[in-house]
Amino acid sequence: MVLGAGDDAAVWAPPAGRALAVTQDALVEDQDFTRSWPGPYLLGRRALVVSLCDLAAMGAQPAFCLVTFCAPPATQVDDVLAIQAGLCDEALRVGCSVLGGDVSRCDGPIVLDVVAGGTVVPGAMLRRDAGRAGDVLLVTGVLGRAAAGLRLLTEPTAAEGIAAADAERWRRAQTEPMPRLVEGRLAAEAGVRCGGDLSDGLLADAARTTGASGCAAELWLDAIPVDAALPSAFPTDWVELALGGGEDFELLLAVPPGEQQRLHTAWPAHLAPLTEVGRLTEGAGVRLLDSRGGRELRPPAVRARHFR
Amino acid sequence: MVLGAGDDAAVWAPPAGRALAVTQDALVEDQDFTRSWPGPYLLGRRALVVSLCDLAAMGAQPAFCLVTFCAPPATQVDDVLAIQAGLCDEALRVGCSVLGGDVSRCDGPIVLDVVAGGTVVPGAMLRRDAGRAGDVLLVTGVLGRAAAGLRLLTEPTAAEGIAAADAERWRRAQTEPMPRLVEGRLAAEAGVRCGGDLSDGLLADAARTTGASGCAAELWLDAIPVDAALPSAFPTDWVELALGGGEDFELLLAVPPGEQQRLHTAWPAHLAPLTEVGRLTEGAGVRLLDSRGGRELRPPAVRARHFR
Repeated sequence: MVLGAGDDAAVWAPPAGRALAVTQDALVEDQDFTRSWPGPYLLGRRALVVSLCDLAAMGAQPAFCLVTFCAPPATQVDDVLAIQAGLCDEALRVGCSVLGGDVSRCDGPIVLDVVAGGTVVPGAMLRRDAGRAGDVLLVTGVLGRAAAGLRLLTEPTAAEGIAAADAERWRRAQTEPMPRLVEGRLAAEAGVRCGGDLSDGLLADAARTTGASGCAAELWLDAIPVDAALPSAFPTDWVELALGGGEDFELLLAVPPGEQQRLHTAWPAHLAPLTEVGRLTEGAGVRLLDSRGGRELRPPAVRARHFR
Repeated sequence: MVLGAGDDAAVWAPPAGRALAVTQDALVEDQDFTRSWPGPYLLGRRALVVSLCDLAAMGAQPAFCLVTFCAPPATQVDDVLAIQAGLCDEALRVGCSVLGGDVSRCDGPIVLDVVAGGTVVPGAMLRRDAGRAGDVLLVTGVLGRAAAGLRLLTEPTAAEGIAAADAERWRRAQTEPMPRLVEGRLAAEAGVRCGGDLSDGLLADAARTTGASGCAAELWLDAIPVDAALPSAFPTDWVELALGGGEDFELLLAVPPGEQQRLHTAWPAHLAPLTEVGRLTEGAGVRLLDSRGGRELRPPAVRARHFR
């Protein structure tokens, strides 16, 4: 960093050969969080995590962030400090300097708006538009946990009959998401050129990738890494939770078939595992099949996300 | 730009030898604007201008911006499009790419939060902390117009007895501020190393500069370029308007005395004029004198700016 917070603007320069990846995401009270959930510390952390997930999806290394905080005068100082602590702890964990921002009174909902900047090698980053028909589609991690956690948090009766360990795992997936930064960087370094996050859910984000890449996709339901306890806990809508819920913040990668083995070999066991879930194909749109070469399923409803 | 809006993050790299100056500013309804003022087009423009003024104060060349827009569902589409048009027209005028952002529902005030990035030469930018005792203090332009315009807009009876041309000039200064981008860059290129904006008013911003530079300042009231019609229109509080109102968005520079003449010579006549308004001195704090070497005045009250 050339000049930190305190002047009219902060000044920063990327290391030689690297460019800036920059993204902005707002969390708005009663849309993205409530007074009681996830609590001020985890809210501050989450405000940065949602932008870090976008950086992960580019294969970027986090470098800095700026934060705007708008709140009504009655906001408790302890809550403000806890929000700040949550954000700063996460920034420290991932090596991200807090370079500035703005604070304003707002006689309404709390708004936390974060800009995160990271560095990428311009020729070796993960892009939405770099997929080609024939590419293998891979996801990181396990899907459906965060959506199940949100269900338990918003409909307390939904937890009846669910094992405590399952419920706890799902609630934590929702309240303490982990940005897949190491996974994104490793994929980019290993030569993957097409990637994106799953913040709108696998179906919606596969459609974004195919739209940008000018091709179609098929997804194989039986291959998708869904949390093992999800189908029995939510027998009528586990597919919707796993494919429509986005807040697992996992990554979707597309790689030419010849490179898949090399990527799996380079992938350390301690990272979120890579799972093949389908293919890019000629055409347009995303089809859901019950299995590879199997019959086509009607895709589940994707829950509306206000303006988006 | 390496990769524009549409992917998980935008990617941008500064030209060789230049660094990124980055700043974030939010405009919040009923704090910084109202439904009726300044109107959606000028609001969109202003949302970018307040950040551009910070870039001007670094001597930066604008490069990109990101915008978060939060609004209630009842917001008229025409208003949203007008806000966007105002912002995009200003971005185009100053050569700034709109790289992305976020849109969210907010059941409360409209919030427009803009991040602007520009480029600077790290060794040749305007910093708050580069002033030294003995430096000459210079301001660009004319002070007090925007604060007078705000008075006329918020207290319509204040316009009684004021010439229409004066009232119009002051209202426009408030609703259509101009970022001093060319002036800031020229100052940096001419070797000025200490500068900041006047967004909180000359008294407050002189105090920021002296605090960062570890010195004191004296300001000479009779030397300050106040709009000529202001004292007769506001006989009891013209000094407060000129020294406490910040929204003229002019610049404050500090230069060693030996460099002042060279800067004036290099300054084109079509730019906002430079005026010597005081000196940096040993010590701490900002003193207001009636003239150079004259008697000390009690500084006017500086209006509170909510959280800041």
